[in-house]
Amino acid sequence: MTIKYLHAMIRTTAPEESHRFYTEGLGLIKTRQYDSEAGQFSLIYYAVEQGAPEVELTHNWDDRNYSNGDQFGHLAFEVSDIYQVCETLQSIGVTILRPPRDGHMAFIKDPNGISIELLQAGERLAPKEPWASMENTGSW
Amino acid sequence: MTIKYLHAMIRTTAPEESHRFYTEGLGLIKTRQYDSEAGQFSLIYYAVEQGAPEVELTHNWDDRNYSNGDQFGHLAFEVSDIYQVCETLQSIGVTILRPPRDGHMAFIKDPNGISIELLQAGERLAPKEPWASMENTGSW
Repeated sequence: MTIKYLHAMIRTTAPEESHRFYTEGLGLIKTRQYDSEAGQFSLIYYAVEQGAPEVELTHNWDDRNYSNGDQFGHLAFEVSDIYQVCETLQSIGVTILRPPRDGHMAFIKDPNGISIELLQAGERLAPKEPWASMENTGSW
Repeated sequence: MTIKYLHAMIRTTAPEESHRFYTEGLGLIKTRQYDSEAGQFSLIYYAVEQGAPEVELTHNWDDRNYSNGDQFGHLAFEVSDIYQVCETLQSIGVTILRPPRDGHMAFIKDPNGISIELLQAGERLAPKEPWASMENTGSW
């Protein structure tokens, strides 16, 4: 028996904002989309590249609301420059909840409150402003 | 800037049961563990193989309780034989909430109520009992 990790599914009430977050913010590409007129929902997939693990966003067209529990924690991504990705995220209005003061780790939330961990690939970067003295915001 | 998906973090109040689910049940291996005496928590990682995307289980030793919201949906895995993995899961006491009646898709929950989707790799399998006539149980 073989098994392979495919995706994490997240429900979104803000598909356009989510699209901007995952593409412009994190630099993923939209890999595919499935719209069900009968079921009144869309499934939209994002990944680093075709064939890589995906984030699947489910958008129910009735725009019902959802709640975030704390049994599920977060999704984590490794990035080649944690300062650059945080700067890009800030530029599209994302709050860096746990800034990368240590040049190693940051936490943000996607537009639906899903916690996302960013980890610097390889060795941690040298401390750098404005990150080094930036306080935490809220929870993640 | 490059980015790579690393893991999904889930909080567990039943680390031994979770270990059995992800290893014996799904066939993943435990890739690493970090115990923090100072922080009173353990991080335990599972994956198909070293270097593959991981499920990170966080066990806070104080055994606090958590809640499952519905903003996060599920984690999905592709399997080479969906009947075989469902049989194995059943044999360790896991309820097949959405049985693979269609030879293609099944849903289960991990010991902490995290929804897991199983998808048959490649073409769907021919219908097979007891799955073909098995009813759904609960939600997922």
